[in-house]
Amino acid sequence: MAESSDSRRKGAGAGKRASEAATSEPGSIPNSPCGACKFLRRKCVSGCIFAPYFGSDQGAARFAAVHKVFGASNVSKLLMHIPVNRRQHAVVTISYEAQARLSDPVYGCVSTVLALQQQVHGSTWRNGLVG
Amino acid sequence: MAESSDSRRKGAGAGKRASEAATSEPGSIPNSPCGACKFLRRKCVSGCIFAPYFGSDQGAARFAAVHKVFGASNVSKLLMHIPVNRRQHAVVTISYEAQARLSDPVYGCVSTVLALQQQVHGSTWRNGLVG
Repeated sequence: MAESSDSRRKGAGAGKRASEAATSEPGSIPNSPCGACKFLRRKCVSGCIFAPYFGSDQGAARFAAVHKVFGASNVSKLLMHIPVNRRQHAVVTISYEAQARLSDPVYGCVSTVLALQQQVHGSTWRNGLVG
Repeated sequence: MAESSDSRRKGAGAGKRASEAATSEPGSIPNSPCGACKFLRRKCVSGCIFAPYFGSDQGAARFAAVHKVFGASNVSKLLMHIPVNRRQHAVVTISYEAQARLSDPVYGCVSTVLALQQQVHGSTWRNGLVG
């Protein structure tokens, strides 16, 4: 799901203030921003917390969903409080939740929890959850 | 999990721009802000999108988790795009996801999905999800 034009304009504003510097991760194109920074239209600095998890090519689209649901700032704060070796898993689960919430704004990935509960127990805790 | 003082100050700033009106939900104390507005330290205007779902008493603590994980602005936008008669369900599932993410920053409620998958299929799609 695409980010709103308002948010992109805000990102563009930040980008105009940025310099030419960009990430220089192994395997990345020199001066190519990560997908998150590309989406936010901002400079991708060395050590960018998103760069290892949102590639320059397809990462921008994945980041758009994460940003729309959680917000870049919230996700950045969350990742900073997670050990580096666990951040990849966190990004995957956050992306999954974000995609699910965009697909189903009312239930998000909780619809999957409820469906699985139904299979396991023959009934769900839906009434307890949302009744 | 408590909100940062920065966010709370931002909430207070937003409140200064609001009018004098307050919620008048059935059962609520007149002029008592809803839990969300109480947490954000802002005026609770008539028609506040959070007021029906975050009571003045215990709603502030629930909203703190939602705000920390999703951000008040993102949740407000989400709710505005959901029919009124489905918003209660959305708030419950969002609160559930927020609490789960604060309890388990790496997996959030996806840990529940994975555990249920294990019970249903004898294996999880964890490898596919986070491998």
